[in-house]
Amino acid sequence: MTSALNDQSLDQIFRSARTPNGWENRPVADDTVRQIYDLMKWGPTSANTSPARFVWVRSADGKATLAGLAAEPNRPKILKAPVTVIIGHDLDFADELPKLMPHNTEVMQKYFAAPGVAEVTAMRNGTLQGAYLIVAARALGLDCGPMSGFDNAGVDKVFFSGTQIQSNFICSIGHGDPASLFPRNPRLGFEEAGRWA
Amino acid sequence: MTSALNDQSLDQIFRSARTPNGWENRPVADDTVRQIYDLMKWGPTSANTSPARFVWVRSADGKATLAGLAAEPNRPKILKAPVTVIIGHDLDFADELPKLMPHNTEVMQKYFAAPGVAEVTAMRNGTLQGAYLIVAARALGLDCGPMSGFDNAGVDKVFFSGTQIQSNFICSIGHGDPASLFPRNPRLGFEEAGRWA
Repeated sequence: MTSALNDQSLDQIFRSARTPNGWENRPVADDTVRQIYDLMKWGPTSANTSPARFVWVRSADGKATLAGLAAEPNRPKILKAPVTVIIGHDLDFADELPKLMPHNTEVMQKYFAAPGVAEVTAMRNGTLQGAYLIVAARALGLDCGPMSGFDNAGVDKVFFSGTQIQSNFICSIGHGDPASLFPRNPRLGFEEAGRWA
Repeated sequence: MTSALNDQSLDQIFRSARTPNGWENRPVADDTVRQIYDLMKWGPTSANTSPARFVWVRSADGKATLAGLAAEPNRPKILKAPVTVIIGHDLDFADELPKLMPHNTEVMQKYFAAPGVAEVTAMRNGTLQGAYLIVAARALGLDCGPMSGFDNAGVDKVFFSGTQIQSNFICSIGHGDPASLFPRNPRLGFEEAGRWA
Protein backbone atom coordinates (compact mmCIF):
# COMPACT_ATOMS: atom_id res chain seq x y z
CA MET A 1 0.00 0.00 0.00
CA THR A 2 1.19 3.49 -0.83
CA SER A 3 1.40 6.01 1.99
CA ALA A 4 1.38 9.79 2.02
CA LEU A 5 4.49 11.81 1.37
CA ASN A 6 6.04 13.23 4.53
CA ASP A 7 4.95 16.64 5.76
CA GLN A 8 8.12 18.36 4.61
CA SER A 9 7.51 17.17 1.04
CA LEU A 10 3.84 18.19 1.11
CA ASP A 11 4.92 21.61 2.40
CA GLN A 12 7.49 21.95 -0.37
CA ILE A 13 5.15 21.24 -3.28
CA PHE A 14 1.96 22.79 -1.87
CA ARG A 15 1.62 24.26 1.61
CA SER A 16 4.76 26.39 1.87
CA ALA A 17 5.43 26.98 -1.83
CA ARG A 18 5.04 30.61 -2.86
CA THR A 19 5.22 32.65 -6.06
CA PRO A 20 8.21 35.00 -5.80
CA ASN A 21 8.23 38.40 -7.48
CA GLY A 22 11.99 38.61 -7.70
CA TRP A 23 14.83 36.20 -8.31
CA GLU A 24 18.21 35.48 -6.79
CA ASN A 25 21.19 35.67 -9.11
CA ARG A 26 21.67 31.90 -9.18
CA PRO A 27 21.64 29.85 -12.37
CA VAL A 28 19.49 26.82 -13.15
CA ALA A 29 21.53 24.14 -14.90
CA ASP A 30 20.35 22.83 -18.25
CA ASP A 31 20.33 19.38 -16.73
CA THR A 32 17.91 20.58 -14.04
CA VAL A 33 15.51 21.83 -16.71
CA ARG A 34 15.70 18.41 -18.34
CA GLN A 35 14.96 16.83 -14.96
CA ILE A 36 11.83 18.99 -14.65
CA TYR A 37 10.67 17.80 -18.06
CA ASP A 38 11.51 14.18 -17.31
CA LEU A 39 9.25 14.32 -14.25
CA MET A 40 6.32 16.33 -15.60
CA LYS A 41 6.10 14.38 -18.86
CA TRP A 42 4.65 11.43 -16.89
CA GLY A 43 1.58 13.38 -15.74
CA PRO A 44 -1.65 12.05 -17.23
CA THR A 45 -3.23 13.57 -20.34
CA SER A 46 -6.29 12.57 -22.34
CA ALA A 47 -5.37 9.58 -24.54
CA ASN A 48 -1.71 10.37 -23.73
CA THR A 49 -1.95 13.26 -26.20
CA SER A 50 0.71 15.31 -24.35
CA PRO A 51 -0.08 18.47 -26.36
CA ALA A 52 2.10 20.91 -24.38
CA ARG A 53 5.11 22.39 -26.14
CA PHE A 54 7.84 24.37 -24.42
CA VAL A 55 10.30 27.12 -25.22
CA TRP A 56 12.86 27.41 -22.43
CA VAL A 57 13.98 31.04 -22.64
CA ARG A 58 17.41 31.48 -21.04
CA SER A 59 19.47 33.64 -23.45
CA ALA A 60 19.76 37.40 -23.07
CA ASP A 61 18.18 37.90 -26.48
CA GLY A 62 15.35 35.49 -25.75
CA LYS A 63 14.59 37.11 -22.40
CA ALA A 64 14.59 40.61 -23.93
CA THR A 65 12.22 39.52 -26.69
CA LEU A 66 9.83 37.79 -24.31
CA ALA A 67 9.97 40.65 -21.79
CA GLY A 68 9.11 43.07 -24.59
CA LEU A 69 5.90 41.12 -25.22
CA ALA A 70 4.94 40.92 -21.53
CA ALA A 71 2.86 43.19 -19.33
CA GLU A 72 5.02 45.84 -17.69
CA PRO A 73 5.05 44.34 -14.16
CA ASN A 74 6.24 41.00 -15.58
CA ARG A 75 9.20 42.39 -17.57
CA PRO A 76 11.79 42.61 -14.78
CA LYS A 77 10.82 39.15 -13.56
CA ILE A 78 11.53 37.65 -16.99
CA LEU A 79 14.81 39.54 -17.36
CA LYS A 80 16.04 38.52 -13.92
CA ALA A 81 14.92 34.88 -13.76
CA PRO A 82 17.48 32.31 -14.98
CA VAL A 83 14.88 30.73 -17.25
CA THR A 84 11.29 31.48 -18.23
CA VAL A 85 9.43 28.74 -20.05
CA ILE A 86 6.69 29.46 -22.56
CA ILE A 87 4.05 26.76 -22.23
CA GLY A 88 2.09 26.34 -25.44
CA HIS A 89 -0.09 23.59 -26.88
CA ASP A 90 0.04 22.15 -30.37
CA LEU A 91 -3.28 21.98 -32.21
CA ASP A 92 -1.55 19.38 -34.42
CA PHE A 93 -0.85 17.17 -31.39
CA ALA A 94 -2.62 14.22 -33.07
CA ASP A 95 0.30 13.97 -35.52
CA GLU A 96 2.32 12.47 -32.64
CA LEU A 97 -0.21 9.75 -31.81
CA PRO A 98 1.62 7.02 -33.78
CA LYS A 99 4.30 7.37 -31.11
CA LEU A 100 2.11 8.28 -28.11
CA MET A 101 -0.89 5.97 -28.66
CA PRO A 102 0.43 3.33 -31.07
CA HIS A 103 -2.33 0.75 -30.57
CA ASN A 104 -5.19 3.15 -31.27
CA THR A 105 -3.78 5.89 -33.50
CA GLU A 106 -6.35 5.98 -36.30
CA VAL A 107 -9.44 5.93 -34.09
CA MET A 108 -8.13 8.74 -31.91
CA GLN A 109 -6.89 10.85 -34.84
CA LYS A 110 -10.37 10.64 -36.33
CA TYR A 111 -11.89 11.63 -32.99
CA PHE A 112 -9.62 14.67 -32.59
CA ALA A 113 -10.28 15.79 -36.17
CA ALA A 114 -13.93 16.70 -35.39
CA PRO A 115 -14.61 20.46 -35.26
CA GLY A 116 -13.43 22.10 -32.03
CA VAL A 117 -12.17 18.92 -30.39
CA ALA A 118 -8.45 19.54 -30.95
CA GLU A 119 -8.71 23.08 -29.55
CA VAL A 120 -10.35 22.18 -26.23
CA THR A 121 -8.25 19.03 -25.85
CA ALA A 122 -5.02 20.95 -26.43
CA MET A 123 -5.97 23.73 -24.03
CA ARG A 124 -7.18 21.40 -21.27
CA ASN A 125 -4.34 18.92 -21.42
CA GLY A 126 -1.61 21.43 -22.19
CA THR A 127 -2.68 23.36 -19.10
CA LEU A 128 -2.64 20.20 -16.98
CA GLN A 129 0.93 19.68 -18.18
CA GLY A 130 1.79 23.27 -17.24
CA ALA A 131 0.64 22.55 -13.69
CA TYR A 132 2.66 19.31 -13.62
CA LEU A 133 5.67 21.41 -14.65
CA ILE A 134 5.12 23.81 -11.73
CA VAL A 135 4.86 20.96 -9.22
CA ALA A 136 7.85 19.14 -10.75
CA ALA A 137 10.06 22.24 -10.47
CA ARG A 138 9.03 22.72 -6.86
CA ALA A 139 9.64 19.05 -6.14
CA LEU A 140 13.22 19.56 -7.36
CA GLY A 141 13.71 22.48 -4.98
CA LEU A 142 13.04 25.37 -7.36
CA ASP A 143 10.57 28.24 -7.24
CA CYS A 144 8.05 29.07 -9.97
CA GLY A 145 6.53 32.34 -11.09
CA PRO A 146 3.66 31.56 -13.49
CA MET A 147 2.30 34.53 -15.45
CA SER A 148 -0.48 35.06 -17.97
CA GLY A 149 0.07 38.78 -18.54
CA PHE A 150 1.64 38.90 -22.00
CA ASP A 151 0.74 39.30 -25.66
CA ASN A 152 -0.20 35.76 -26.68
CA ALA A 153 -0.51 36.53 -30.39
CA GLY A 154 2.84 38.31 -30.36
CA VAL A 155 4.54 35.44 -28.59
CA ASP A 156 3.02 32.95 -31.05
CA LYS A 157 4.33 35.00 -33.98
CA VAL A 158 7.87 35.19 -32.60
CA PHE A 159 8.32 31.85 -30.87
CA PHE A 160 5.88 29.48 -32.63
CA SER A 161 5.99 30.78 -36.20
CA GLY A 162 5.05 28.26 -38.88
CA THR A 163 3.39 25.91 -36.41
CA GLN A 164 -0.07 25.33 -34.96
CA ILE A 165 1.28 25.87 -31.44
CA GLN A 166 -0.52 28.49 -29.33
CA SER A 167 1.00 30.03 -26.22
CA ASN A 168 -0.90 29.42 -22.99
CA PHE A 169 1.07 30.86 -20.07
CA ILE A 170 4.68 31.52 -19.13
CA CYS A 171 6.55 30.53 -15.98
CA SER A 172 9.82 31.81 -14.58
CA ILE A 173 11.90 29.19 -12.80
CA GLY A 174 14.78 29.69 -10.38
CA HIS A 175 15.54 30.52 -6.81
CA GLY A 176 13.08 33.14 -5.60
CA ASP A 177 14.15 36.15 -3.59
CA PRO A 178 12.38 35.72 -0.22
CA ALA A 179 12.23 39.51 0.17
CA SER A 180 10.05 39.70 -2.95
CA LEU A 181 7.16 37.70 -1.52
CA PHE A 182 3.81 39.38 -0.97
CA PRO A 183 1.76 38.36 2.08
CA ARG A 184 -0.14 35.19 1.27
CA ASN A 185 -3.76 35.60 0.28
CA PRO A 186 -6.47 33.29 1.65
CA ARG A 187 -8.05 30.41 -0.23
CA LEU A 188 -11.67 29.28 -0.42
CA GLY A 189 -12.76 26.75 2.17
CA PHE A 190 -13.81 23.22 1.22
CA GLU A 191 -17.51 24.05 1.32
CA GLU A 192 -17.04 27.37 -0.53
CA ALA A 193 -15.39 25.61 -3.46
CA GLY A 194 -17.42 22.44 -3.56
CA ARG A 195 -20.04 20.06 -2.27
CA TRP A 196 -20.79 16.37 -1.89
CA ALA A 197 -23.22 14.55 -4.16
CA MET B 1 18.26 26.04 0.48
CA THR B 2 15.51 23.71 -0.58
CA SER B 3 16.50 20.30 -1.89
CA ALA B 4 14.74 17.83 -4.13
CA LEU B 5 12.17 15.39 -2.80
CA ASN B 6 13.53 11.88 -2.40
CA ASP B 7 13.25 9.46 -5.31
CA GLN B 8 10.45 7.48 -3.71
CA SER B 9 8.32 10.63 -3.49
CA LEU B 10 9.12 11.69 -7.07
CA ASP B 11 8.16 8.18 -8.20
CA GLN B 12 4.90 8.35 -6.28
CA ILE B 13 3.66 11.63 -7.74
CA PHE B 14 5.13 11.32 -11.26
CA ARG B 15 7.37 8.49 -12.41
CA SER B 16 5.51 5.44 -11.11
CA ALA B 17 2.01 6.91 -10.88
CA ARG B 18 -0.44 5.35 -13.30
CA THR B 19 -4.06 5.79 -14.33
CA PRO B 20 -5.97 2.66 -13.31
CA ASN B 21 -8.97 1.43 -15.27
CA GLY B 22 -10.53 -0.39 -12.35
CA TRP B 23 -10.83 0.16 -8.64
CA GLU B 24 -10.39 -1.88 -5.48
CA ASN B 25 -13.36 -2.08 -3.17
CA ARG B 26 -11.79 0.21 -0.55
CA PRO B 27 -13.38 3.44 0.65
CA VAL B 28 -11.84 6.91 0.70
CA ALA B 29 -12.67 8.71 3.95
CA ASP B 30 -14.35 12.10 3.79
CA ASP B 31 -11.45 13.48 5.77
CA THR B 32 -9.05 12.26 3.08
CA VAL B 33 -11.01 14.16 0.43
CA ARG B 34 -10.74 17.27 2.60
CA GLN B 35 -6.99 16.68 2.90
CA ILE B 36 -6.74 16.57 -0.90
CA TYR B 37 -8.52 19.91 -1.12
CA ASP B 38 -6.46 21.44 1.68
CA LEU B 39 -3.30 20.64 -0.27
CA MET B 40 -4.36 21.52 -3.80
CA LYS B 41 -5.99 24.81 -2.81
CA TRP B 42 -2.48 26.28 -2.29
CA GLY B 43 -1.45 25.79 -5.91
CA PRO B 44 -0.94 29.09 -7.75
CA THR B 45 -3.66 30.66 -9.90
CA SER B 46 -3.76 33.95 -11.76
CA ALA B 47 -4.41 36.75 -9.24
CA ASN B 48 -5.38 34.02 -6.75
CA THR B 49 -8.68 33.68 -8.63
CA SER B 50 -9.05 29.99 -7.69
CA PRO B 51 -11.94 29.48 -10.16
CA ALA B 52 -12.22 25.69 -9.85
CA ARG B 53 -15.37 24.30 -8.26
CA PHE B 54 -15.87 20.70 -7.20
CA VAL B 55 -18.67 18.19 -6.82
CA TRP B 56 -17.39 15.14 -4.95
CA VAL B 57 -19.69 12.37 -6.15
CA ARG B 58 -19.77 9.49 -3.66
CA SER B 59 -23.45 8.51 -3.22
CA ALA B 60 -25.03 5.69 -5.20
CA ASP B 61 -27.50 8.11 -6.76
CA GLY B 62 -24.78 10.61 -7.63
CA LYS B 63 -22.61 7.95 -9.23
CA ALA B 64 -25.53 6.56 -11.25
CA THR B 65 -26.44 10.02 -12.52
CA LEU B 66 -22.87 10.90 -13.47
CA ALA B 67 -22.24 7.50 -15.05
CA GLY B 68 -25.38 7.96 -17.15
CA LEU B 69 -23.86 11.14 -18.59
CA ALA B 70 -20.46 9.57 -19.29
CA ALA B 71 -19.06 7.80 -22.32
CA GLU B 72 -19.73 4.07 -22.14
CA PRO B 73 -16.15 2.97 -21.26
CA ASN B 74 -16.11 5.41 -18.32
CA ARG B 75 -19.38 4.25 -16.73
CA PRO B 76 -18.11 1.23 -14.79
CA LYS B 77 -15.14 3.26 -13.54
CA ILE B 78 -17.45 5.89 -12.06
CA LEU B 79 -19.76 3.30 -10.51
CA LYS B 80 -16.88 1.36 -8.95
CA ALA B 81 -14.64 4.18 -7.72
CA PRO B 82 -15.27 5.36 -4.13
CA VAL B 83 -15.48 8.97 -5.29
CA THR B 84 -15.43 10.77 -8.64
CA VAL B 85 -14.95 14.50 -8.51
CA ILE B 86 -16.41 16.82 -11.14
CA ILE B 87 -13.96 19.66 -11.71
CA GLY B 88 -15.69 22.76 -13.01
CA HIS B 89 -14.82 26.43 -13.17
CA ASP B 90 -16.99 29.35 -12.18
CA LEU B 91 -17.27 32.14 -14.76
CA ASP B 92 -18.41 34.31 -11.82
CA PHE B 93 -15.12 33.66 -9.98
CA ALA B 94 -14.47 37.41 -9.67
CA ASP B 95 -17.32 37.62 -7.14
CA GLU B 96 -14.96 35.95 -4.65
CA LEU B 97 -12.12 38.44 -5.10
CA PRO B 98 -13.02 40.51 -2.01
CA LYS B 99 -11.94 37.43 -0.08
CA LEU B 100 -9.21 36.12 -2.39
CA MET B 101 -7.53 39.38 -3.47
CA PRO B 102 -8.65 41.91 -0.84
CA HIS B 103 -6.07 44.60 -1.58
CA ASN B 104 -6.83 44.79 -5.29
CA THR B 105 -10.43 43.67 -5.73
CA GLU B 106 -11.87 46.48 -7.85
CA VAL B 107 -9.01 46.68 -10.35
CA MET B 108 -9.04 42.93 -10.95
CA GLN B 109 -12.83 42.69 -11.14
CA LYS B 110 -12.76 45.36 -13.84
CA TYR B 111 -10.01 43.46 -15.68
CA PHE B 112 -11.91 40.17 -15.61
CA ALA B 113 -15.13 41.87 -16.79
CA ALA B 114 -13.70 42.55 -20.26
CA PRO B 115 -15.18 40.35 -23.03
CA GLY B 116 -13.75 36.82 -23.05
CA VAL B 117 -11.31 37.33 -20.18
CA ALA B 118 -13.33 35.47 -17.53
CA GLU B 119 -13.80 32.48 -19.83
CA VAL B 120 -10.13 31.89 -20.66
CA THR B 121 -9.02 32.72 -17.11
CA ALA B 122 -11.52 30.27 -15.61
CA MET B 123 -10.57 27.49 -18.05
CA ARG B 124 -6.81 27.98 -17.68
CA ASN B 125 -6.72 28.33 -13.92
CA GLY B 126 -9.47 25.84 -13.17
CA THR B 127 -7.52 23.28 -15.19
CA LEU B 128 -4.30 24.07 -13.32
CA GLN B 129 -6.24 23.41 -10.13
CA GLY B 130 -7.48 20.11 -11.54
CA ALA B 131 -3.87 19.04 -12.06
CA TYR B 132 -2.95 20.15 -8.54
CA LEU B 133 -5.80 17.94 -7.32
CA ILE B 134 -4.40 14.92 -9.19
CA VAL B 135 -0.91 15.44 -7.76
CA ALA B 136 -2.29 16.09 -4.25
CA ALA B 137 -4.29 12.86 -4.28
CA ARG B 138 -1.26 10.92 -5.43
CA ALA B 139 0.87 12.60 -2.80
CA LEU B 140 -1.57 11.27 -0.19
CA GLY B 141 -1.19 7.72 -1.51
CA LEU B 142 -4.27 7.55 -3.72
CA ASP B 143 -4.72 6.79 -7.41
CA CYS B 144 -6.48 9.05 -9.91
CA GLY B 145 -8.43 8.30 -13.05
CA PRO B 146 -9.04 11.59 -14.90
CA MET B 147 -11.60 11.45 -17.73
CA SER B 148 -12.97 13.92 -20.26
CA GLY B 149 -15.36 11.56 -22.01
CA PHE B 150 -18.75 12.75 -20.77
CA ASP B 151 -21.62 15.07 -21.71
CA ASN B 152 -20.43 18.43 -20.38
CA ALA B 153 -23.71 20.24 -21.06
CA GLY B 154 -25.67 17.46 -19.40
CA VAL B 155 -23.43 17.48 -16.33
CA ASP B 156 -23.71 21.27 -16.08
CA LYS B 157 -27.50 21.03 -16.21
CA VAL B 158 -27.69 18.40 -13.47
CA PHE B 159 -24.83 19.37 -11.15
CA PHE B 160 -24.31 23.12 -11.72
CA SER B 161 -27.87 24.28 -12.39
CA GLY B 162 -28.50 27.96 -11.65
CA THR B 163 -24.81 28.84 -11.62
CA GLN B 164 -22.18 30.03 -14.09
CA ILE B 165 -20.06 26.97 -13.35
CA GLN B 166 -19.00 24.88 -16.35
CA SER B 167 -17.73 21.32 -16.05
CA ASN B 168 -14.17 20.74 -17.27
CA PHE B 169 -13.17 17.14 -16.55
CA ILE B 170 -13.93 14.44 -14.00
CA CYS B 171 -11.54 12.34 -11.94
CA SER B 172 -12.12 9.12 -10.05
CA ILE B 173 -10.12 8.79 -6.84
CA GLY B 174 -9.38 5.66 -4.84
CA HIS B 175 -7.12 2.66 -4.74
CA GLY B 176 -6.57 1.42 -8.27
CA ASP B 177 -6.75 -2.23 -9.18
CA PRO B 178 -3.22 -3.07 -10.39
CA ALA B 179 -4.65 -5.70 -12.72
CA SER B 180 -6.54 -2.98 -14.59
CA LEU B 181 -3.45 -1.09 -15.76
CA PHE B 182 -2.69 -0.90 -19.47
CA PRO B 183 0.97 -1.06 -20.57
CA ARG B 184 2.47 2.40 -20.23
CA ASN B 185 2.69 4.44 -23.41
CA PRO B 186 5.82 6.44 -24.26
CA ARG B 187 6.22 10.19 -23.83
CA LEU B 188 7.82 12.77 -26.10
CA GLY B 189 11.50 13.42 -25.53
CA PHE B 190 12.77 16.78 -24.30
CA GLU B 191 13.70 17.97 -27.80
CA GLU B 192 10.48 16.65 -29.33
CA ALA B 193 8.36 18.73 -26.96
CA GLY B 194 10.49 21.84 -26.74
CA ARG B 195 13.58 23.88 -27.48
CA TRP B 196 15.89 26.44 -25.92
CA ALA B 197 15.75 30.12 -26.80
